[in-house]
Amino acid sequence: MGLVVQKFGGSSVATIEKIKNVAGRVMSERDQGNQVVVVVSAMGDLTDDLISLANQIGKSHPEREMDMLLTTGEQQSAALLTMTLVNMGCPAVSLTGWQCGIMTDPVHTKARIAGIKPDRIKKELEQGKVVVVAGFQGISPDGDLTTLGRGGSDTTAVALAAVLKADVCDIYTDVDGVFTADPRVVKEASKLDMISYDEMLELASLGAGVLQPRAVEFAMHYDVTVQVRSSFNLEPGTLVVEVGKMESDRVVSGVAHDLNVAKVALFDVPDKPGIAHAIFMALAEVNINVDMIVQAAMRDGRNDIAFTISKDDLPQALPVVERVCREIGASGTAYGEDLAKVSIVGAGMMSNPGVAAAMFETLAQEGINIHMISTSEIKVSCIVHAHEIERAVRAIHSRFNL
Amino acid sequence: MGLVVQKFGGSSVATIEKIKNVAGRVMSERDQGNQVVVVVSAMGDLTDDLISLANQIGKSHPEREMDMLLTTGEQQSAALLTMTLVNMGCPAVSLTGWQCGIMTDPVHTKARIAGIKPDRIKKELEQGKVVVVAGFQGISPDGDLTTLGRGGSDTTAVALAAVLKADVCDIYTDVDGVFTADPRVVKEASKLDMISYDEMLELASLGAGVLQPRAVEFAMHYDVTVQVRSSFNLEPGTLVVEVGKMESDRVVSGVAHDLNVAKVALFDVPDKPGIAHAIFMALAEVNINVDMIVQAAMRDGRNDIAFTISKDDLPQALPVVERVCREIGASGTAYGEDLAKVSIVGAGMMSNPGVAAAMFETLAQEGINIHMISTSEIKVSCIVHAHEIERAVRAIHSRFNL
Repeated sequence: MGLVVQKFGGSSVATIEKIKNVAGRVMSERDQGNQVVVVVSAMGDLTDDLISLANQIGKSHPEREMDMLLTTGEQQSAALLTMTLVNMGCPAVSLTGWQCGIMTDPVHTKARIAGIKPDRIKKELEQGKVVVVAGFQGISPDGDLTTLGRGGSDTTAVALAAVLKADVCDIYTDVDGVFTADPRVVKEASKLDMISYDEMLELASLGAGVLQPRAVEFAMHYDVTVQVRSSFNLEPGTLVVEVGKMESDRVVSGVAHDLNVAKVALFDVPDKPGIAHAIFMALAEVNINVDMIVQAAMRDGRNDIAFTISKDDLPQALPVVERVCREIGASGTAYGEDLAKVSIVGAGMMSNPGVAAAMFETLAQEGINIHMISTSEIKVSCIVHAHEIERAVRAIHSRFNL
Repeated sequence: MGLVVQKFGGSSVATIEKIKNVAGRVMSERDQGNQVVVVVSAMGDLTDDLISLANQIGKSHPEREMDMLLTTGEQQSAALLTMTLVNMGCPAVSLTGWQCGIMTDPVHTKARIAGIKPDRIKKELEQGKVVVVAGFQGISPDGDLTTLGRGGSDTTAVALAAVLKADVCDIYTDVDGVFTADPRVVKEASKLDMISYDEMLELASLGAGVLQPRAVEFAMHYDVTVQVRSSFNLEPGTLVVEVGKMESDRVVSGVAHDLNVAKVALFDVPDKPGIAHAIFMALAEVNINVDMIVQAAMRDGRNDIAFTISKDDLPQALPVVERVCREIGASGTAYGEDLAKVSIVGAGMMSNPGVAAAMFETLAQEGINIHMISTSEIKVSCIVHAHEIERAVRAIHSRFNL
């Protein structure tokens, strides 16, 4: 007998009709003799609806209370799916994050899982029940409700799969798997059968939007086999595995793009040790993730430093940046939001030095200006104007024959 | 410095605009130097909306999962009110039932509070915060979420007032207080300044709908001063106090009526010891409250037994009654739903023997047939046809000069 963790996103549980479809999926997995743990997100647009309710109160909210508000969404869908399962004759029980023993740090709205005590889940599984878990949430050391950030239900699923030593963690979504590019932008994009954790991590971080990066980190760290697949058909999806298990020798696996990019610049930053630390420490303290960082050539002992963050974080970042700007004696700040990021990812890039150059050449041929560049061993990212992003993705996808 | 518990019902927190009004109330209580604990219900019709969502799944639901679903409503309004308070500059924190240490028995959908560990609330109050509590809910010994039944937020408020030794428990509602009759039925109905726990308990049980009976029991047992008042004006409401604190010598305090009545009858029940026990024990085992019980005159060693329950409980009660009917050898069962209950309540009735007779005479003069009668020391109740109930209430209200 195996143990399977299944995760269904908001679009898969948006209506009672869709929840019944999900229940069918769960039961067919159980009929194959497996124990099943199901992780659900909030129904459809409920999370956004709750956020706009909160926005009627004022512009900023205590993050502790946002978590208190938003955790209700997943609790509702967990209860409704469990009712549906029981109604269809399948023993089932719903559990909130804290009832599952999902302990997090106390960073509200983007908490990280610190540990899981799965006693309750194991007890319910032993009694022959399907366990339906409210995703996206946990409990802080002080006993407060926390959430794991956008896409946090993925992390709940993978973390539970890790601690329960599940055979597979199936992430059900509204697409058939991981594609070589966003099919809405590139018609020729094709589904990948397999992808390595490293590549998936880059793709997830780069805005491919299929899996929360934190979930991939967990999967990689605990060697959880993750499958990204469609909740609307029975086709196999994309397996996310160790690079050693990959068969292909492709150089570039996919092209990702991300419109959720804001650029912040500090001008005339004094060129002394500790300055970069001062800037990025201040942002880390308010839990803002910085993505790309570029430091321009030194002029008269002063530098320009530019970096990108998610657009959502911009309102919180700007006052911090302006304070640091005064403290370190920089001459001023600027920011831009009409930008986007295009990236190529591939584990084979490590041994193929010409890949970055080919990407830059493609963009140049299209007349697309590159604002920032960032590279790692298995990816190259370029910041371009938002209105040029689709053209960039299509050109690059074609260039690498994906 | 005093401590005040305030409870706001669903209609008082139905919109963000109304929540802002509630926040103003809370802050003015705090500005008078009091510590404040606020208990809230779910917004407007949210609970009913969630129930109809569940009803799309099927006719009956696991009660554990209904509690899981419904507790989210109060958690949402607690979070939104807290955000509003913080936004208006008032330190505040929201807590769920289990975070408040509200422990209940494991009877889902109508759990009873078994104890409260108020450590967290006290800690937050000591830090100068207003504590906003999600009403209607608690946690079972197994760590499952439970709800306290319709109107359960009242009980949450009074129980917290008892354990925190609050000076007063203000129950804010959409009426000005407790009236001599339902003002929607009797235009001349007037607000009572004071009412005794006993009278309030009878009125609450009788469907006056202002306070959950369990809340009044708690208040009486722990000597909590409760005030029922309007959330839309600053007028004093009705104080619910010990009978010794009452000044008036009125005989009848009010006329209550209740349309949520179903009658069940068993025919030709054998006249032996233990039969009544068999019937009502079976109903108690499925947690159905029986209200009035009438046993008709014996004929040939067999009786007819009729009783009333809440309409909501009828679907669950009928199979139980039919089973018991076969087991004890009764000849058959019947039930009726087009009934209503009219009652008069007054602590002064104990020393005024003519009161019940005056009520029966009034109904007779109106040509209204009485189906069942039940009396206690301070109340008389009659079951009549549902379509005659408003006429009955008006006639009785007028007869006793209320």
